[in-house]
Amino acid sequence: MTLLPGTPFDCFADGDKLKEECGIFGAIGLTDAANFVALGLHALQHRGQEAGGIVSHDPVEGFNSARRFGYVRDNFTRADVMATLPGSLAIGHVRYSTAGSKGATAIRDVQPFFGEFAIGGCAIAHNGNLTNAARLRKDLIERGAIFQSSSDSECIIHLMARSMQKTQAERLKDALRLVEGAFSVIAMTRTKLMGVRDPLGVRPLVLGRLGDGWFLASETCALDIIGAEFIREIEPGEMVVIEDGVLQSSRPFAPAKSRFCIFEQVYFSRPDSIIGGRSVYETRRQIGVELAREAPIEADLVCPVPDSGTPAAIGYAAESGIQFGLGITRNQYMGRTFIEPTEQIRNMGVRLKLNVNKSLIRGKRVILVDDSVVRGTTSRKIKDMILDAGAAEVHFRIASPPTAWPCFYGVDTPERSKLLAATMTEDQMRDWIGVDSLKFISLDGLYRAAGEAQGRDPAAPRYCDACFSGEYPIAPADKLDQGFEMKTAAE
Amino acid sequence: MTLLPGTPFDCFADGDKLKEECGIFGAIGLTDAANFVALGLHALQHRGQEAGGIVSHDPVEGFNSARRFGYVRDNFTRADVMATLPGSLAIGHVRYSTAGSKGATAIRDVQPFFGEFAIGGCAIAHNGNLTNAARLRKDLIERGAIFQSSSDSECIIHLMARSMQKTQAERLKDALRLVEGAFSVIAMTRTKLMGVRDPLGVRPLVLGRLGDGWFLASETCALDIIGAEFIREIEPGEMVVIEDGVLQSSRPFAPAKSRFCIFEQVYFSRPDSIIGGRSVYETRRQIGVELAREAPIEADLVCPVPDSGTPAAIGYAAESGIQFGLGITRNQYMGRTFIEPTEQIRNMGVRLKLNVNKSLIRGKRVILVDDSVVRGTTSRKIKDMILDAGAAEVHFRIASPPTAWPCFYGVDTPERSKLLAATMTEDQMRDWIGVDSLKFISLDGLYRAAGEAQGRDPAAPRYCDACFSGEYPIAPADKLDQGFEMKTAAE
Amino acid sequence: MTLLPGTPFDCFADGDKLKEECGIFGAIGLTDAANFVALGLHALQHRGQEAGGIVSHDPVEGFNSARRFGYVRDNFTRADVMATLPGSLAIGHVRYSTAGSKGATAIRDVQPFFGEFAIGGCAIAHNGNLTNAARLRKDLIERGAIFQSSSDSECIIHLMARSMQKTQAERLKDALRLVEGAFSVIAMTRTKLMGVRDPLGVRPLVLGRLGDGWFLASETCALDIIGAEFIREIEPGEMVVIEDGVLQSSRPFAPAKSRFCIFEQVYFSRPDSIIGGRSVYETRRQIGVELAREAPIEADLVCPVPDSGTPAAIGYAAESGIQFGLGITRNQYMGRTFIEPTEQIRNMGVRLKLNVNKSLIRGKRVILVDDSVVRGTTSRKIKDMILDAGAAEVHFRIASPPTAWPCFYGVDTPERSKLLAATMTEDQMRDWIGVDSLKFISLDGLYRAAGEAQGRDPAAPRYCDACFSGEYPIAPADKLDQGFEMKTAAE
Amino acid sequence: MTLLPGTPFDCFADGDKLKEECGIFGAIGLTDAANFVALGLHALQHRGQEAGGIVSHDPVEGFNSARRFGYVRDNFTRADVMATLPGSLAIGHVRYSTAGSKGATAIRDVQPFFGEFAIGGCAIAHNGNLTNAARLRKDLIERGAIFQSSSDSECIIHLMARSMQKTQAERLKDALRLVEGAFSVIAMTRTKLMGVRDPLGVRPLVLGRLGDGWFLASETCALDIIGAEFIREIEPGEMVVIEDGVLQSSRPFAPAKSRFCIFEQVYFSRPDSIIGGRSVYETRRQIGVELAREAPIEADLVCPVPDSGTPAAIGYAAESGIQFGLGITRNQYMGRTFIEPTEQIRNMGVRLKLNVNKSLIRGKRVILVDDSVVRGTTSRKIKDMILDAGAAEVHFRIASPPTAWPCFYGVDTPERSKLLAATMTEDQMRDWIGVDSLKFISLDGLYRAAGEAQGRDPAAPRYCDACFSGEYPIAPADKLDQGFEMKTAAE
Repeated sequence: MTLLPGTPFDCFADGDKLKEECGIFGAIGLTDAANFVALGLHALQHRGQEAGGIVSHDPVEGFNSARRFGYVRDNFTRADVMATLPGSLAIGHVRYSTAGSKGATAIRDVQPFFGEFAIGGCAIAHNGNLTNAARLRKDLIERGAIFQSSSDSECIIHLMARSMQKTQAERLKDALRLVEGAFSVIAMTRTKLMGVRDPLGVRPLVLGRLGDGWFLASETCALDIIGAEFIREIEPGEMVVIEDGVLQSSRPFAPAKSRFCIFEQVYFSRPDSIIGGRSVYETRRQIGVELAREAPIEADLVCPVPDSGTPAAIGYAAESGIQFGLGITRNQYMGRTFIEPTEQIRNMGVRLKLNVNKSLIRGKRVILVDDSVVRGTTSRKIKDMILDAGAAEVHFRIASPPTAWPCFYGVDTPERSKLLAATMTEDQMRDWIGVDSLKFISLDGLYRAAGEAQGRDPAAPRYCDACFSGEYPIAPADKLDQGFEMKTAAE
Repeated sequence: MTLLPGTPFDCFADGDKLKEECGIFGAIGLTDAANFVALGLHALQHRGQEAGGIVSHDPVEGFNSARRFGYVRDNFTRADVMATLPGSLAIGHVRYSTAGSKGATAIRDVQPFFGEFAIGGCAIAHNGNLTNAARLRKDLIERGAIFQSSSDSECIIHLMARSMQKTQAERLKDALRLVEGAFSVIAMTRTKLMGVRDPLGVRPLVLGRLGDGWFLASETCALDIIGAEFIREIEPGEMVVIEDGVLQSSRPFAPAKSRFCIFEQVYFSRPDSIIGGRSVYETRRQIGVELAREAPIEADLVCPVPDSGTPAAIGYAAESGIQFGLGITRNQYMGRTFIEPTEQIRNMGVRLKLNVNKSLIRGKRVILVDDSVVRGTTSRKIKDMILDAGAAEVHFRIASPPTAWPCFYGVDTPERSKLLAATMTEDQMRDWIGVDSLKFISLDGLYRAAGEAQGRDPAAPRYCDACFSGEYPIAPADKLDQGFEMKTAAE
Repeated sequence: MTLLPGTPFDCFADGDKLKEECGIFGAIGLTDAANFVALGLHALQHRGQEAGGIVSHDPVEGFNSARRFGYVRDNFTRADVMATLPGSLAIGHVRYSTAGSKGATAIRDVQPFFGEFAIGGCAIAHNGNLTNAARLRKDLIERGAIFQSSSDSECIIHLMARSMQKTQAERLKDALRLVEGAFSVIAMTRTKLMGVRDPLGVRPLVLGRLGDGWFLASETCALDIIGAEFIREIEPGEMVVIEDGVLQSSRPFAPAKSRFCIFEQVYFSRPDSIIGGRSVYETRRQIGVELAREAPIEADLVCPVPDSGTPAAIGYAAESGIQFGLGITRNQYMGRTFIEPTEQIRNMGVRLKLNVNKSLIRGKRVILVDDSVVRGTTSRKIKDMILDAGAAEVHFRIASPPTAWPCFYGVDTPERSKLLAATMTEDQMRDWIGVDSLKFISLDGLYRAAGEAQGRDPAAPRYCDACFSGEYPIAPADKLDQGFEMKTAAE
Repeated sequence: MTLLPGTPFDCFADGDKLKEECGIFGAIGLTDAANFVALGLHALQHRGQEAGGIVSHDPVEGFNSARRFGYVRDNFTRADVMATLPGSLAIGHVRYSTAGSKGATAIRDVQPFFGEFAIGGCAIAHNGNLTNAARLRKDLIERGAIFQSSSDSECIIHLMARSMQKTQAERLKDALRLVEGAFSVIAMTRTKLMGVRDPLGVRPLVLGRLGDGWFLASETCALDIIGAEFIREIEPGEMVVIEDGVLQSSRPFAPAKSRFCIFEQVYFSRPDSIIGGRSVYETRRQIGVELAREAPIEADLVCPVPDSGTPAAIGYAAESGIQFGLGITRNQYMGRTFIEPTEQIRNMGVRLKLNVNKSLIRGKRVILVDDSVVRGTTSRKIKDMILDAGAAEVHFRIASPPTAWPCFYGVDTPERSKLLAATMTEDQMRDWIGVDSLKFISLDGLYRAAGEAQGRDPAAPRYCDACFSGEYPIAPADKLDQGFEMKTAAE
């Protein structure tokens, strides 16, 4: 099967960021729905850059599918590909490869997944992660199911295939009542577009409309690109079924308190998307404002680590009154394919992605604003670049609390021992990175920036913040089976 | 021959920007020089995205060449390609296709060009444009030369082939004394790396060093990426020849007063490059400062048109005290290949490249800062987007004077009648674009921002500003033959 | 999914031949077994040219799979592909696409198929056709199975998945006892290579050995290419399991009388393969000898329709004493991809594949020897070519009886109404094709040539000859469900 | 530049055959002439399999060109490629790469070559070899010409560019009067199709017609494929110019006696082509007849070495009365791309291309008929295969005299020391190959088979037979410069 091109070697490659694993999009009611899905996925490309897929249905041509490695723009814009996806009903998915899957088999893992049931065909696209997938998979295989992928999401299709319900919607409910974890799911049958969010609403899912067309998308920016109107968010625990222009809503799960992923606010979502009635950009700028209040320092320049640190840096500069400047330039032509040239060049510390504006930095006391610290390796290298350029002082300000716990709800995080904040105090991290000061926003500060005037309510936090707090709102069954240790009272 | 994929259709495609036609890079003295050239070209990708080429020389393998359509990162990072380019001497080129060439033959036009002369082989890479190329070409063909490309630059190789000089350096001088126009040229023989700038120094060329290696590059950012030290700019009218680690400088042309392209400061060069001892970013920020002084307005938000308007917007906001905010988001996954999907979608005004942050813009008086206005079509569409998002007022501030004249020195400009500023006054432009106010920086203001405290000296301007002033420092011979009319005293 | 390139338009394209649907090969016991499988499949390419696949197993790397459209030599000879198939155990498959499948989904239909069962993984490659696959599939889907392909062969994997047996061999037996039809199956687990033939032995399967390696293959020519020794044929109804260098044989089915496909002798198998102790070439030459005895005619030249008619033409010429000559030349560079150029050229009756040697044919009475007549359209065109070249007379001699019935056991035949011999007498066919005489070998003559000295025993025919006789040794259950009418006593 | 895939490793690969270096085809007068050229080149594929090119001209689109590695059917049948070649005038070329050129630069060497002269554009396609090309090239470069290829044929274009004549036809004559060697040239301008053969007519060139269209081709089989009528051969020393439906003939060279290449009869030309009024097949069959008379032997089977030995084997069998049989099967799916899998398999002596029909050969005295012996390595391997299969005796009969001299007129031959017949007597060759007998046809016998009833006239041989006789009708100037020694009186 198709192998991905060689591993990037840039010292500033994305390996030191948490990665959202999926973006999903569905369209019904307009001719050539797959074109809308392609545009929607293009707008959601930041949620998954490894591969993408689209399934469409047309009464004459039936279900059709195209799944490819690479960017949406390189695959789902080609006339020959799109001509194979006719019909007014289509769903799509973009994804990162999960850490565990081998490249050689990964095309199997590209969604949407499709099953031909006794009552007809159904395709699903899933954003999130099922925390009991391993248990479910083992049980299904023992009962004769043949899995085609290594994906947790495929369990949903097999559970639907075995449901005795007479409608696809009921089968989907049957299946989702058996799974645990975080999920926003878009599904399609020959006539229906369906969308569901898990009871806690960990992953986003929004509803849009344009003329006779209805759309489901991970973020509002995917509605903007096609000029669709943002109607509302699908609510935690809600299921919508759209058919013949009519939307029906139901609540298949036991009621629960919402726990939306706070990292969507910090990093995953696009700044021009709207969450909870406010643009993500504004929330991030406000994080910078809070950070300036919590962790002020005397300096000459506030410089974002591009591009994700920019809104918070703008907020920090505005609140602190220190000049804002673009001291680090990002090469906009970086792709995913830069391959290690020679040992010689590698050893020079080549800087493919970022470059420092030396004449701006020289002699200045610089505040660098970044969104998060994961392994810390990138932070060290950026510090080196800034010092090489002649900065007088370097101060790191981080727009999220220390990331000390892995995510099990659809984000690709290193194992706990690899997280810098899991093994060091803030002071130790400062010394290890080698900067004059290092400050993270507090969890309360983050909640305030995200609109909770009182900060975080420890008794009933409004967000899932397990990566910072270690408080997992859904028990990670498979991980516990594998020996993962939850936070103890002592921590 | 290889055809380019379909034409992009996005309404915010780059068609409304002036385009630098070339970036060049040369390396001598280090093993696998082509790897350095590939990295250098990657850093210069903004100067030409259509195609690129590298020629290398190795004592055993001789001259080798690879020329490809597409990004450097997609071609010159592949082990199979780079393995064909051995040796410690290499030069490269990135380019836009010129407006006139047909896609079907364009691979012929990709530089470097190579000629096997009686005294040995020579390759050249040229940034700029020869204003008497048509005359030279006609004459050469009549004398039996066979051209392989439609490029003006190929004349240089044929002129060298016919020179009676005994060294390649003398042949290159012979050839360049016969051409007119703007040129920075990098050339290589079996043992020498050579660099030349035209007498006015219209196009940039810089010199760098790393260990035993010497480098020539269009901009300093291409030295940064390989960790090389920026030694100095090659001077206008200077020729350098580097062989066996020794650099020799000469002055083959009659002395002339320098006229560097001022648009390099405004738009072409990367913000982290250094020109005249200062970073381009700082000059651009200073343009914003000057613009705020020249054209103040009451407003709530200073918003850059990404990404090129950002430094000036930062300067404008700082000087005016108005809040700086990222009201327009650029999709970082836009490539060159998005193909028109269907008429239906096209008519929706799909916004593939830019999206407005509606919740930030709504109800605000917005100052949009852009680098230039060429045809004006993009400005109208951005204005529409901002108004659709609910802005109370829209004010355009442009970081360059009105672009009223075409460039004949290596920049791809529309013919004069297509330039908005050639046919309208500033007020007419404001009305045509449909904004509450529109102001351009003055030519004097631009010169001040670029470091000329006294503004522009009309008797001896320090820059080539023909695109703004209509004062062409080199007579465009071929264009005059084709009927182009120079500025009259009345204009 | 990958689409095949355009449809060939040549008037002599293979559309008028029956097509074997599969070739299979398995190897165990030697390093890099997939290389042997690739070579074996290359030798079996005549049995299936549309696509091929290989699955290998390595203790460290587990199961790996590569499935591709196109020739073996173009896919499974590439280092990058073969490097993904490590291990000393591998099986492979080449196939034609079945008439019913749509190009857009066909990669799913490329074997081997793989299933991960509770007791471990298993891959299978199937040559033949299951006559009750539709019934089985419907039942499996109702019980929750999710099919990934449109192939009948996938039923075997699902039946194995649902078996309660504790070993893969027993599961395979369970599955094959439920299927009906013709099958030679090669299967592999982590440690075992297995081979089975259906009780009648309709499709071939042979066993070979080389050093420590064991091989299973459709034909002996695939053993020759790797230098392996041909041990014996797997017997009808036999199952062999090879593990750790030891072969075990069993008989999982009720005993039955062998009915090997007689068309393998006539056309499918390669002439250098050995069936029943004699080379297929010799049997075909003997068909020509019988044909010369049954249907003599005065003529000047015996000319084969290349390449499949050649051995019978040699036999006919030898027996009749008439000169043998190559009057028709086949273009050896024809591939599968010649695409219709323009209407203009199409109408000229372009002859891409065959050309007549005019100066040899002119004025002669020509006997054309072909292997079979299916639709008859090719025969007409060849007759036209021969007459255009100036032949005095044209006589067709066919090395098989009239093909009057479709095959349901793994050969791609047109529906009955499209078979020329199903609707016309021999005389009518002669007139419709437009030749001076047309004679088919008798069924008895064919049996004699194939080694049955007494001809065909109507009470117990040694071969499956349903395509000629209409006597189907296995009831075609699905086809009967679809309304197919078996031969009546009257026919 | 595009590299060819890996080197084939099969022990029966084509490395032990002489290779024609080119086939050429031109068309004028019919819409979409490039389609006819593509078909013609497909029919001439046996003359050059490495690469091909087509140039077309259309009044609106001008000259267009496509040059590709690989088979005609894989490149010039694709709609996207052919759409770039509009117009009713086109020429094309297929070629082997010459031994000397490096893969990395070879695309430059693919013809047709094109030059834009002061009087307009001209493209040429050349079959043959210029024996003074190195001298011409050196001189042209000294006068300022820039060569784009390593091909001798490019000299013609440069000589035309420097001609002072006012018409392309006269410039072509000027150029060809300066070259020495063997050449059949097809050229095209905006309105003319031109064809020329060198004074001795060493290489073939024929004229055809279809409706309003005229065609020039290397062989008549390329006229057959498009249904065109074969009008006549272009005569040695003749030049034809076709324009507006009118053909004009002239004789630009001093008269000379014809010396057509006799190896075209033996091996290069397709058997269904017509040379001198008789099909090549018949000449080859007659060679077999002559060989049976000259070198009879008692045996059981006459077996051709496929495919080129087949006609002579048929003739040998007919004349000798010994049975003709296909004892060696050729894999028709061999392409050019089979890559060495592993050392292990390599050492097994894998037989990818040929397989012996063991059950036919076993115990028999076998006469193998092959067309020629070059290095002899293939003959040894075939002998091994036949003996392994159990043959009682092996006798080689060769349909050409011993190949003892290299060809300098357009055929790729090893240097003289690598030719088996240059270093051994017939008996030595027999022993080295290891067969019971080895006989070559005599030169007189070959001439008789080719229609010269009196055999070869030593004073005025009708053919060029330098490869057999060492008598070179054109002095090989460049080779003599390089030290090649002509035959001495003693040899």
